[in-house]
Amino acid sequence: MFDRNLKFPIIGFGIGTTDSKGLLIEVHFTKIIDQGDELFNAFSTMLGKNDFVTDINKDEFMSSIDDIKIKPLKKNKRYVLTQIKNDKPINSIAVAFLKLHLISYRSFKPNTLNLEGLFQTLRNIAWTNKGPICVEEIEPFYQDDNDDLPLQVYSIDKFPPLLNYMAPSGVRVADGSRVRLGAYLASGTTVMHEGFVNFNAGTLGPAMIEGRISAGVVIGEHSDLGGGSSTMGTLSGGNNVKISVGKRCLLGANSGLGIPLGDDCIIEAGLYLTSGSKVSIVDEDKIVKASELSGKSNLIFRRNSLTGQVEAVPNKKSVKLNEELHKN
Amino acid sequence: MFDRNLKFPIIGFGIGTTDSKGLLIEVHFTKIIDQGDELFNAFSTMLGKNDFVTDINKDEFMSSIDDIKIKPLKKNKRYVLTQIKNDKPINSIAVAFLKLHLISYRSFKPNTLNLEGLFQTLRNIAWTNKGPICVEEIEPFYQDDNDDLPLQVYSIDKFPPLLNYMAPSGVRVADGSRVRLGAYLASGTTVMHEGFVNFNAGTLGPAMIEGRISAGVVIGEHSDLGGGSSTMGTLSGGNNVKISVGKRCLLGANSGLGIPLGDDCIIEAGLYLTSGSKVSIVDEDKIVKASELSGKSNLIFRRNSLTGQVEAVPNKKSVKLNEELHKN
Amino acid sequence: MFDRNLKFPIIGFGIGTTDSKGLLIEVHFTKIIDQGDELFNAFSTMLGKNDFVTDINKDEFMSSIDDIKIKPLKKNKRYVLTQIKNDKPINSIAVAFLKLHLISYRSFKPNTLNLEGLFQTLRNIAWTNKGPICVEEIEPFYQDDNDDLPLQVYSIDKFPPLLNYMAPSGVRVADGSRVRLGAYLASGTTVMHEGFVNFNAGTLGPAMIEGRISAGVVIGEHSDLGGGSSTMGTLSGGNNVKISVGKRCLLGANSGLGIPLGDDCIIEAGLYLTSGSKVSIVDEDKIVKASELSGKSNLIFRRNSLTGQVEAVPNKKSVKLNEELHKN
Repeated sequence: MFDRNLKFPIIGFGIGTTDSKGLLIEVHFTKIIDQGDELFNAFSTMLGKNDFVTDINKDEFMSSIDDIKIKPLKKNKRYVLTQIKNDKPINSIAVAFLKLHLISYRSFKPNTLNLEGLFQTLRNIAWTNKGPICVEEIEPFYQDDNDDLPLQVYSIDKFPPLLNYMAPSGVRVADGSRVRLGAYLASGTTVMHEGFVNFNAGTLGPAMIEGRISAGVVIGEHSDLGGGSSTMGTLSGGNNVKISVGKRCLLGANSGLGIPLGDDCIIEAGLYLTSGSKVSIVDEDKIVKASELSGKSNLIFRRNSLTGQVEAVPNKKSVKLNEELHKN
Repeated sequence: MFDRNLKFPIIGFGIGTTDSKGLLIEVHFTKIIDQGDELFNAFSTMLGKNDFVTDINKDEFMSSIDDIKIKPLKKNKRYVLTQIKNDKPINSIAVAFLKLHLISYRSFKPNTLNLEGLFQTLRNIAWTNKGPICVEEIEPFYQDDNDDLPLQVYSIDKFPPLLNYMAPSGVRVADGSRVRLGAYLASGTTVMHEGFVNFNAGTLGPAMIEGRISAGVVIGEHSDLGGGSSTMGTLSGGNNVKISVGKRCLLGANSGLGIPLGDDCIIEAGLYLTSGSKVSIVDEDKIVKASELSGKSNLIFRRNSLTGQVEAVPNKKSVKLNEELHKN
Repeated sequence: MFDRNLKFPIIGFGIGTTDSKGLLIEVHFTKIIDQGDELFNAFSTMLGKNDFVTDINKDEFMSSIDDIKIKPLKKNKRYVLTQIKNDKPINSIAVAFLKLHLISYRSFKPNTLNLEGLFQTLRNIAWTNKGPICVEEIEPFYQDDNDDLPLQVYSIDKFPPLLNYMAPSGVRVADGSRVRLGAYLASGTTVMHEGFVNFNAGTLGPAMIEGRISAGVVIGEHSDLGGGSSTMGTLSGGNNVKISVGKRCLLGANSGLGIPLGDDCIIEAGLYLTSGSKVSIVDEDKIVKASELSGKSNLIFRRNSLTGQVEAVPNKKSVKLNEELHKN
């Protein structure tokens, strides 16, 4: 399923969970196809003009599809077919989850899909050991304390953890609770325990992630986000500029980044570089706002430990990921 | 159960787990009542002078209570009634857990209950997929590696995760392992993956929490704790002053706070403001210790990126939470 | 099993999981012995020259060993005997897991075992509620969304969480996903939710860990790593010096450490002390590189809030852990 270069229209097939009214609350898509796939026309006919259908019981039809085995499902489970003809704003949970899958299956890079309406569409779900439960219906589950496998509520969130939906090839994630479905993790990426990757964000190549990748942020290949490092998001900050990190960059431990970085840059451990930071360019003896250095390559940013001044100096050697450690 | 304004005496009803000697190690209270409730007198009679009772098998009695169904329990489970007549120091596990529930059910705000004796009373529990197991009795569970659902030990801690006991209304918690029972999460609160809320701490209104709320710390409504931000606790620090954050404040990512903040304050990303920091009040051209600014409103704290000096300047615009993102 | 002073040769007995080809992917050792143990010779004979054996079905033999009960195992489980005669580089999964157990059982301190070959030997495992699954074989598990207890993939990592293998005596770990097998946690250690301990790293005595202990780093007794504090590792940094923290030290919240510390030192909250930081020794009116202060005791490191200068001043009082909080 990974790394396929798909074009709209796209159809996803999977199994969804419903609430007590039979409304979908999430869908896990295990098959994604576009017009190049031979199943496309059959699925397209079943969908007609609907964004999604859940009443897939046409035995004679489905039995002809070899690699999908239709079995009787539990009461709150449905087979789901979903189509996206054009990349419009989101207005159904089926389409919302399909778009999140398309990013995590690495068919679309972060910031290339229309995610308008995502937050309003998704519901708050209790993600539990008994499966997803919409938060309005969780209460009775708390009443039963006598179960051999008692209720574990891992999170109450609009997004599930990526690893419960798929295992991106060539990727390690040391704490699955910290990567949301909708994250884009390129092969060769390691997300350590202190790493975090939001939806619509991720890595474009091999990378060591021990810091936080906010929604909309992308990290170039062979870059390293040190433990506890922060990338400013556009969701909750007042920031309108999308942050990104180029290739072979290093964000030191506990550092932070408020501007897009070029290639071969280093942020010193512990330095938070905001867009408004005034930076002394040591070689040129001039001072600029950090935002003016957006996208520039080969820079080391540090706070002078004698003067407290934030400085930029040329980076003469590029960062090299530890080969042994980073090999997947 | 949430947001009820209760007065002592208070009685809790729930199910507890025992160790092999029959001693309670934790209780999950699903019903909390005070004198205004019609069950109060019946429960009070059953309790007599005891802080708690676990031998509730009076069928004729309990069957008269419609909304509580008494069923046979597993060997290590007990129905538990617990009463708190006055808010005295804690000396039983039943009372300890009842007080933690009272805060998380939002009947009592942080720092309004007597929690003296809490740490000495609580036992170290292995919180597992098979239920809570007191740590002294966990060993045999490790010997059985042949189970279809192998042992998962999520934590060994005195406190369980809040979400395994209740789902506070109007709240999202992206990583349940980071909010302890005893946290007070107001409706409209989102605790993101990097957020953390200790017991006897929390938010008084809608808030975005991506930082750490230490025990005893409260955050005012419409405030935002940025990713990795820190609030100093009084438990392990040498600090005697209770930290708090007012309304509409922003703690920037990776920042830290060692004084109580008023309303409409901002701590710049990456700045750790300790009580001993010397702060230059730019407008007044004077220098004060940060602790002298405790509780003051409308201040922006930052470290001057040219001089390294910690400064306070007036905050002219107030923080606004992202409406879409923060709507629950 | 804990705190035994063992000498090579050492034999471990436990249960391992295999992939579909019957190859071991992990082993959980529940019994560890050396020549002083009466089982040693019998086990040694069974092992012969092999590093490990998995075909332990010699009923007449095993039945003679009272305290090990041999039962029929599931298809992908094996009884495993593993021996380490000399502390050579690692070239089997059985030996790799045995060495990680030896550290976590506190028979060998961090940095005293030869772990060469560890990363190349260990495989990427999906650690799930259904048990460990090698990542190449996880795909079919994602296809079944109809299970009463749906698949939970907690992590995809070479290392499992310590707490799923053992519960070190006298230790609390508030979030089990953040301590890897191979961590050395001395009795009296509390690892809070924001704490992290890598393999071959840990604490040598009672300690409060709310920061990150990188691979190879050891923390002395009665020290306190504040929330979000960072210790530089030698694995991914360019750093060749092993970081360590002495006794009764305090790393403030969100601070960081790039040099070995002596005893009774404090790093101020929010300060990242790298080895290259230039530090003003206030009393002596001189400036040195932080690396020159490696291992020195009784120092407080801080960033002067007026001048931005990193300073070292003598520490006149030593850190005292909160007795009540830190008692296990």
